[in-house]
Amino acid sequence: MKYCSTCGELVEQRIPQGDNRYRFVCISCDTIHYQNPRIVAGTVPVWNGKILLCRRAIEPRYGYWTLPAGFMENAETTIEAAVRETLEEALAEIHIDGLYSIIDVPHINQVHMFYRATLKDGQFGAGEESLESKLFAPDEIPWDEISFPTVRKTLELFLSEVGSDSFGVHVSDIRHPMASKA
Amino acid sequence: MKYCSTCGELVEQRIPQGDNRYRFVCISCDTIHYQNPRIVAGTVPVWNGKILLCRRAIEPRYGYWTLPAGFMENAETTIEAAVRETLEEALAEIHIDGLYSIIDVPHINQVHMFYRATLKDGQFGAGEESLESKLFAPDEIPWDEISFPTVRKTLELFLSEVGSDSFGVHVSDIRHPMASKA
Repeated sequence: MKYCSTCGELVEQRIPQGDNRYRFVCISCDTIHYQNPRIVAGTVPVWNGKILLCRRAIEPRYGYWTLPAGFMENAETTIEAAVRETLEEALAEIHIDGLYSIIDVPHINQVHMFYRATLKDGQFGAGEESLESKLFAPDEIPWDEISFPTVRKTLELFLSEVGSDSFGVHVSDIRHPMASKA
Repeated sequence: MKYCSTCGELVEQRIPQGDNRYRFVCISCDTIHYQNPRIVAGTVPVWNGKILLCRRAIEPRYGYWTLPAGFMENAETTIEAAVRETLEEALAEIHIDGLYSIIDVPHINQVHMFYRATLKDGQFGAGEESLESKLFAPDEIPWDEISFPTVRKTLELFLSEVGSDSFGVHVSDIRHPMASKA
C-alpha cells in the first residue's frame, strides 16, 4: 500500500495514537487503513461414503486436488460462502451437516473454515477453476497430490472420525508454510 | 474507496474478467481491490461460576456491557486474538477452554467468534477501552445494558448450557441490525 484509497495522497507506516501496531496512515487526511485476516470457507462434500475433491485449474497448485473452498465475500455468511464455493468449483449442490475444522494460517493472514456436507443428488462437475471433480473412497485419496496443508489436515481429521460417525469441531493452526508437505 | 492504493489513480466499480461481482478496479494499473469480511474474536471468561464483562469506554455502545472482543489482527490466530483482546480490555489472563460461538453478521461484513475461557488467577481490571470490568453471576447479567446482539446471543447460549457443563459449538447468524434488541 502506497496511496490513500480515500484521498489519493501518500500513506506512511506509523502507530496511531491509542494503538500499539504500525498501520498505514494517510499523511494528508489521517485515514487509518487497517488490514485484517481473510476467511477461506469450504466443505468436505460426501456422497455414498466417498469424498468429492476438485483438481485445480488455477495457480497456485495447478493440477493438485483440493476440497472446494475460497475467499468469503462481503455480505454473505460462512455457510453461504462454503455452499457457493462448492457450487462454483464442483458444480455440486449440498446440504451442510455441521462446522468441522477451523485452521488458522497466521503467516498468510488467513483462517480456513470447512463444513461437513452431503451432496443433494450425487451430481457434480468441473467449474471454471477446476480441471475435474471426482469422488474418492477413503483409501483412494491422492495424498501425494493434495493442494494445501489445511485441506490435507481437514481430510486427515475427517477420515479419522468417519468410521465412528461422531464428528467434533476442530480448531488448530498451521504456523509455517512448510509445516505440512502438500 | 476512491483511489488505488497501489498507484494513486482513480478506481471504478466493475466486474473483472472471470469474476461475477463488482470490485473496485484501478482505471490505470488494473489492480483489483478485494474487500472481505473481518473477524471479531473474543471470550466468555469465567471465574468461580461468574462471567466477566467489560463496560465499554468507547463508541459504539459507550457505557454498555460486553464480552471482551475485538478485530483479529494479521499474523495472529483466532485464539491469540481472543486472548489478546481479553488482556487488553479486561486486563485478565485466561486459559482457553474451547471454541463456543461463531456468529455471522453479514450486513456489517463481520464474523464474530467467541471462545470459552477461565481466568488464570481471578485477577482482572479495566483496560483503556473499558470503564470497568466485573464478574456477574448468571442471575446478575445486566440484560438491559448489553452492547451487541452477538454478545447477547453468546451469553444466552452459554447460560443455557452452563448448568449441564456440556458445551457445544454454535454456528448461527444475525441478519438484521435490529434483529436483537441490545
